[in-house]
Amino acid sequence: MEPKQQRLMFRQQKQSETTSGLCDNYQQANMVVLPKDYAFAFLLFCMRNPKSCPLMDVLEPGEVTPAIADADVRSDLPKYRIYRDGEWTEDVLDIHAYWRDDFVTFLIGCSFTFEKALSDAGISLLHQELNRVVPMYKTTISLAQAGMFEGNMVVSMRAIKHEQVDKAVRISGEFTHAHGRPVHIGDPEAIGISSLMEPDYGEPAVGETQERTPVFWACGVTPQNAAAQAKAPIMITHAPGHMLITDERDPYYANS
Amino acid sequence: MEPKQQRLMFRQQKQSETTSGLCDNYQQANMVVLPKDYAFAFLLFCMRNPKSCPLMDVLEPGEVTPAIADADVRSDLPKYRIYRDGEWTEDVLDIHAYWRDDFVTFLIGCSFTFEKALSDAGISLLHQELNRVVPMYKTTISLAQAGMFEGNMVVSMRAIKHEQVDKAVRISGEFTHAHGRPVHIGDPEAIGISSLMEPDYGEPAVGETQERTPVFWACGVTPQNAAAQAKAPIMITHAPGHMLITDERDPYYANS
Repeated sequence: MEPKQQRLMFRQQKQSETTSGLCDNYQQANMVVLPKDYAFAFLLFCMRNPKSCPLMDVLEPGEVTPAIADADVRSDLPKYRIYRDGEWTEDVLDIHAYWRDDFVTFLIGCSFTFEKALSDAGISLLHQELNRVVPMYKTTISLAQAGMFEGNMVVSMRAIKHEQVDKAVRISGEFTHAHGRPVHIGDPEAIGISSLMEPDYGEPAVGETQERTPVFWACGVTPQNAAAQAKAPIMITHAPGHMLITDERDPYYANS
Repeated sequence: MEPKQQRLMFRQQKQSETTSGLCDNYQQANMVVLPKDYAFAFLLFCMRNPKSCPLMDVLEPGEVTPAIADADVRSDLPKYRIYRDGEWTEDVLDIHAYWRDDFVTFLIGCSFTFEKALSDAGISLLHQELNRVVPMYKTTISLAQAGMFEGNMVVSMRAIKHEQVDKAVRISGEFTHAHGRPVHIGDPEAIGISSLMEPDYGEPAVGETQERTPVFWACGVTPQNAAAQAKAPIMITHAPGHMLITDERDPYYANS
């Protein structure tokens, strides 16, 4: 299905599933919507932390159609998450009822498509083989502060066979709008992770560690967390795994 | 003189001259100060027009010390220009009397240092040989709009000997924080310039056109113009040619 058709299915609420694996070869985006009073500081936060918050698009206050997708951000994602004063209060399928003219929408790169590129290149990703959500960890890597936005980086971990690590680094490095190269390879304790078996989000996928190296990427949960910690009176994001499918071809596949 | 000492001379108003040629090998920055209400849109404008507005640093509201210079932006530039409702009203040597807690300072890359790199590489720059201010022109190259900020690109032109154009492109391309590669080479009319002899800013420096190609770079006047057109009740910039000297080594010279 083409992105436009797929988004229409979400708009009409005929589907509300995760976008993982949908519209292959098109980039997907994390979404963060904040009132304009928070927009300058959050934009600055993203610029100061480009590995965690690779901006794909920023909309004007009140605007609902991104440059990167002929979509309405109020209805064309499969599911949304509402936060009030930094606390998650509900998940909904449409945000027209919540929308305000001073809302600013940020679209941030996502790792779904670089995972596909890694798989397509024959790189074994343990969490995919186990059919689990990729494990994510809070780290001690501190982020550059901007206004009320601060915190530590959240990373995703993929256990990769030793001999495929170089290739994974090289391929993910081409996805500059989706976190790019790993931020850390190897020893989890070096970045404050005490046990790989106990991720803060997602599911453990460590397996035969003798054969695999843990490789850590900056993760799109980071900006959501930082934004929640800033305790804006209202914030809306995509629900985890329920991204905006854009009209942007994945650069890795753009010429194929 | 080191940047810190030089800035102290400006702070103490022992000097108020142009920074052209001062503190060689350190980057200089254009400055734009706007009230916070304009900051989100101006930041977005800079991000959407990175060739014209290569951001070096953005300060928090009210903050006066950049990350890139151990300086006070209220006193450490040699001269400032005040605009009210988009109109230039006065030039001053210190802006303490104007400062407000909601002022946001933007520091934008400048072409002074890449000019030095071009000269050092033996590239003949006609305006320098004639000891003139580089000619600048309004063009028909439209900029991406963001909120109240819009307009066309202003370019600077350097008349370069045919056989040195490739080298000039390559060297300036390394200055990604100072406008980078040219935006246009050759035919001025293609970008809406009817006569090279009549620049909108600076002085004509065309010379023996048989021997030279006009080469056009995005120019730091662009963001100032766009900001003036937005008619903020107050805006403060550096006075033309009177930049902030930063503590950042020029990347081209950083290893030498």
